[in-house]
Amino acid sequence: MFSEKVQDLIDALSRLPSIGNKTAQRLAIHILQNDRSSGANIATALNNAIGSVGNCRDCRNLSENELCRICADSARSNAVICIVEGPMDVLAVEQSTHFKGKYFVLMGRLAPLDNIGPTEIGLDKLEARLQNGDVQELILATNITVEGDATAYYIAELAKKYGIATSRIAFGVPMGGELEYVDSHTLGHAFESRTRL
Amino acid sequence: MFSEKVQDLIDALSRLPSIGNKTAQRLAIHILQNDRSSGANIATALNNAIGSVGNCRDCRNLSENELCRICADSARSNAVICIVEGPMDVLAVEQSTHFKGKYFVLMGRLAPLDNIGPTEIGLDKLEARLQNGDVQELILATNITVEGDATAYYIAELAKKYGIATSRIAFGVPMGGELEYVDSHTLGHAFESRTRL
Repeated sequence: MFSEKVQDLIDALSRLPSIGNKTAQRLAIHILQNDRSSGANIATALNNAIGSVGNCRDCRNLSENELCRICADSARSNAVICIVEGPMDVLAVEQSTHFKGKYFVLMGRLAPLDNIGPTEIGLDKLEARLQNGDVQELILATNITVEGDATAYYIAELAKKYGIATSRIAFGVPMGGELEYVDSHTLGHAFESRTRL
Repeated sequence: MFSEKVQDLIDALSRLPSIGNKTAQRLAIHILQNDRSSGANIATALNNAIGSVGNCRDCRNLSENELCRICADSARSNAVICIVEGPMDVLAVEQSTHFKGKYFVLMGRLAPLDNIGPTEIGLDKLEARLQNGDVQELILATNITVEGDATAYYIAELAKKYGIATSRIAFGVPMGGELEYVDSHTLGHAFESRTRL
């Protein structure tokens, strides 16, 4: 139906997660019909980012510089490291807490069935940081999923070797959550982890 | 929070319709973390399409060739022209009808307040096609909105000058629609346009 180059664009866009065929058609038509400059900007930004963005030397987060903004910030403490699975999690923690330590971004989680072991998520690098003596506490903020939990426990074991205190973010009923609508798994955990008043 | 080039990519993506800031962040991170080749493909497809896709000489639809696939198809009749507002509408008509005529794509609709007059939607071009004598019928398939209706009536007047039959697609309660949930405007029109059994 569409001409070849328009269809190529639609196909390329629809490879993105959460962009279905219909949305890809709308986006392609919108760009070509109304907003070619935005389209050109996206192409440039993509090429720039793909060509230069790598991983921060210290925390593995995405960055085109050797050190990301947070790792380069000397006002932040090296004594506490928050471990998260991905860049979006760094954003979430930054936006909702007053955490002023550093991060370590796994860029994934342990998933032996997918051949993702400790090295793939950079735990050799993390261990090197634990060895150098600056770190006093690890906050394990991997997701509250089976794989996120397994990853957290693995890292906790690693930290134990170096006598470093570790903590896991709390899980339970979300704020404002009504018990009726909370899944049974979460509610079961919230019961077990009840705190004395 | 994100490094400069990552943020540039997020900003560029979030200019697209239906892509909010959060989705743009997810897409940018996904591309850089997991799928740089898809990102590079998008950049190439964008540049190719922006650089070469123009409008079909006859119907104004998007095409990198002088004539789009439909206008170049000699098996389709030149006697009936279906008028639509945009490329997505051509797709919709092709997918749901057995229409075998040609199209004329307005790439917009009359909107005097936005300075979109007859020339902006190519009606001079349409008039030239009506003048040459091939066309026997116009099917007005602009959207069932105030502006789409106004555009349809304007074109119907134009066709009258050349003695060309025009028809407007029917509007009323959609198939499978329950009266209870149909908006009152549509139901009112459906009552007025009732057909005798």
